Amino acid sequence: MNTVSPLDHVRIILSHTSHPGNIGAAARAMKTMGLSSLYLINPRLFPNKAADDRAVSARDILEKIKICSELDEALESTVLSAAITARPRGLSHEIFNARQGARELLRYARQQPVALLFGAETSGLTTAEVSKCQMIIHIPANPEFSSLNLASAVQVMAYELRMALIEHEEPIPPIGSPANFNELELLYAHLEQVMIASDFLNPQKPRLLMQRIRRLFGRARLEKEEVQILRGILTALGKRW
Amino acid sequence: MNTVSPLDHVRIILSHTSHPGNIGAAARAMKTMGLSSLYLINPRLFPNKAADDRAVSARDILEKIKICSELDEALESTVLSAAITARPRGLSHEIFNARQGARELLRYARQQPVALLFGAETSGLTTAEVSKCQMIIHIPANPEFSSLNLASAVQVMAYELRMALIEHEEPIPPIGSPANFNELELLYAHLEQVMIASDFLNPQKPRLLMQRIRRLFGRARLEKEEVQILRGILTALGKRW
Repeated sequence: MNTVSPLDHVRIILSHTSHPGNIGAAARAMKTMGLSSLYLINPRLFPNKAADDRAVSARDILEKIKICSELDEALESTVLSAAITARPRGLSHEIFNARQGARELLRYARQQPVALLFGAETSGLTTAEVSKCQMIIHIPANPEFSSLNLASAVQVMAYELRMALIEHEEPIPPIGSPANFNELELLYAHLEQVMIASDFLNPQKPRLLMQRIRRLFGRARLEKEEVQILRGILTALGKRW
Repeated sequence: MNTVSPLDHVRIILSHTSHPGNIGAAARAMKTMGLSSLYLINPRLFPNKAADDRAVSARDILEKIKICSELDEALESTVLSAAITARPRGLSHEIFNARQGARELLRYARQQPVALLFGAETSGLTTAEVSKCQMIIHIPANPEFSSLNLASAVQVMAYELRMALIEHEEPIPPIGSPANFNELELLYAHLEQVMIASDFLNPQKPRLLMQRIRRLFGRARLEKEEVQILRGILTALGKRW
């Protein structure tokens, strides 16, 4: 498809990245979710073989990468930008979690460019960087160890953006065609008859056992073909009774 | 806090991992989301320095790691297990996306162990491995490049499990006492034996039929008592063969 997806309007910006492997891994994470626009602000080492290696099949993203010397340049023409932080800070920005933040960004990305800004591996984003963004997104994490790998943080946000894009689509349709009421009743009758014939079920007080069976198979939401299989087994087993 | 979290009941199983760095990165991804139980099935290289390096502060997870030679060992005593795949396959189990799957797993993890099974980096999971699980989870991805890095896939699932934990504090529908892996395997073995004895199943080509059966009962999430009932029926029916 050559139509523009809202994900084409989403820019990932990595600020002052130390390890080039993380740049490659971020590119791969982006591509798996359908993102393609990557900006770097003053990377320590790039281009670099480690970046290429970790990108695997996402080297096309590395080839189109934009390298900037300042955040303003990377944010140019965006209509909404989010600073991604491990811990929400006591700043005046609106704070979203990853899911809410992705939804909010995508609302805007349907029309215009938006950006997600990720800080350096160890030091994170500076206050000055955060203050250039309109919102803060915080990825919920273990309070005792909230240090996501940079590419993992990109992966989670890219995943949430994709989920925000597809979440109103139809659920995956069920496989096979469901058995109808009549087919199920014939199955239960068949099962009951075989159970009585084999002395497993006492016809004087059958109710509770058959209820359990109905509940069990009711939960499974049997398909037509499955009912045929089960009845085939019962026929084979019942032959000698 | 020393109380048991449902996340303590979530087991991550990595099958036949090639790159030890991915094991370390998976451990870090788990720890950032509060998971701690990691199992390996026949890793190519472990323990290994690359694993330690990528784990950063999650080496405690590597130290407690369980190494198994077979999937059955890793799945022991779990009540629900999910195969994580990039693409949903044709004849398989109930399919969930990452979000729905995490919610379903967490419902069970409040009481008992559950597992997420990840395949080898290049080849993924085998059909035999998938068929031992009760559900399939597929991480929505770019159809043109769906190859998430192994640790990134672990990160997304761990993140969704954490989100499932924190987002809904609503009442959870009661679950009976779920059958565990071992009880289910005994049921399948019993059923297979009776089907062969009654000539319903040709042991020369048993695979497809047993897969259908596993899929059907996998969807039903059998309870202990239900397994007893089904095996009771099989015993009664099998008496004269």
